[in-house]
Amino acid sequence: MSIGRTQWAIAEGYIPGWGHGPAPQMISHEAVCILNAGEAEANIEITIYYEDRDPAGPYRFKIAPRRSSHLRFNNFENPEKIPMDTPFSSVITSNVPIVVQHTRLDSRQSENALISTIAFPGNQ
Amino acid sequence: MSIGRTQWAIAEGYIPGWGHGPAPQMISHEAVCILNAGEAEANIEITIYYEDRDPAGPYRFKIAPRRSSHLRFNNFENPEKIPMDTPFSSVITSNVPIVVQHTRLDSRQSENALISTIAFPGNQ
Amino acid sequence: MSIGRTQWAIAEGYIPGWGHGPAPQMISHEAVCILNAGEAEANIEITIYYEDRDPAGPYRFKIAPRRSSHLRFNNFENPEKIPMDTPFSSVITSNVPIVVQHTRLDSRQSENALISTIAFPGNQ
Amino acid sequence: MSIGRTQWAIAEGYIPGWGHGPAPQMISHEAVCILNAGEAEANIEITIYYEDRDPAGPYRFKIAPRRSSHLRFNNFENPEKIPMDTPFSSVITSNVPIVVQHTRLDSRQSENALISTIAFPGNQ
Repeated sequence: MSIGRTQWAIAEGYIPGWGHGPAPQMISHEAVCILNAGEAEANIEITIYYEDRDPAGPYRFKIAPRRSSHLRFNNFENPEKIPMDTPFSSVITSNVPIVVQHTRLDSRQSENALISTIAFPGNQ
Repeated sequence: MSIGRTQWAIAEGYIPGWGHGPAPQMISHEAVCILNAGEAEANIEITIYYEDRDPAGPYRFKIAPRRSSHLRFNNFENPEKIPMDTPFSSVITSNVPIVVQHTRLDSRQSENALISTIAFPGNQ
Repeated sequence: MSIGRTQWAIAEGYIPGWGHGPAPQMISHEAVCILNAGEAEANIEITIYYEDRDPAGPYRFKIAPRRSSHLRFNNFENPEKIPMDTPFSSVITSNVPIVVQHTRLDSRQSENALISTIAFPGNQ
Repeated sequence: MSIGRTQWAIAEGYIPGWGHGPAPQMISHEAVCILNAGEAEANIEITIYYEDRDPAGPYRFKIAPRRSSHLRFNNFENPEKIPMDTPFSSVITSNVPIVVQHTRLDSRQSENALISTIAFPGNQ
């Protein structure tokens, strides 16, 4: 089955600067959920855009055919960490169609808050 | 009235591993809300994609004409249960146009958190 | 300025059965936010779809040119009230292009939870 | 890289009338997150639509090439402040393609609540 696009954008991005609750589920995190429903491996590149410096990346990931992947921006390491408490946006590209959704769990206060939205699909 | 598409995807999926509050309203749940606004019965098939195993499904549902259906992934039984505390994605297909929206109620902490987003509509 | 579509759907719909906090802001509510950015009055019709009965409506509203309107499903009266604690979906049509977004404030527990998503735009 | 549209709308808009928690992160706010992934400066105009008065604006912003910008409606000053506890909608236009997402942090009760959704992209 094939569904999706090869270019996506998430205009909102922010890793809360603190959190509490049992790890790893309740740690504050910013995630990008990606579905590769197709029959070929997806080669993903994610570029991070900041307010006052040049973009960082691309961060590279592979997703096997017919697999889901929930990536936490908190864990991005290469080429560099994404700073906490800093606004950013991201662009996600792939060699095959994928579907992208953005989710945040914010546990800075004693109860967690959640957001999620489908990302913006490009024309490709 | 006809509105919608016959193929949808939800990249985010996760059934919280615990919860509290009065049942059934406040039990942690992951739901897919489907509208069949048309004049024909909808035959729905849902496939679940995981991070590290082959997809499960299809889970089959019928929705009568001019009806809404709010399905909880928690309650999917056939061909198998969806494990809790496990990331997944889903693809929803129908023989007639439908509209699909994703909602989670997370009551793992003492106050509930909610997310909702329209699913991604395929080209069909 | 003209932006939007003349047909929209919201697959999720649910008026929480209780709530607490100061009225009117913190009363649990399910809302449809509509923008009429154009130069002509919008004649809106909203139909409510249920899980186990025929649809209700249309509920009719007028929105003046270049105006926003945040309608609470809780307050719909004619032709009938929408029951609380009951899943539904809605279809919103207009004679001129509008933009539609869905929001819920759920204050059933001591802290409020919020969801919001752009509605699904039809082809018209 | 180019992604986005030059016209967007957010039908929901509301600046909570109060809040609590450490500033500036936990102050109740309504934000529009904008990505300009292209190679040219973006000239942004935002118009605010109200329920019972003429629109206000345009509010003007510039976003440098390859930059993200998270703007808080709370901070809009020119031509006028946006009142708190008042429903509104917004239309965002740009001379170059951008991506727009809407986010609210509501800290009126002791724990914060969050919403986020991609805005509605116009045809341009």
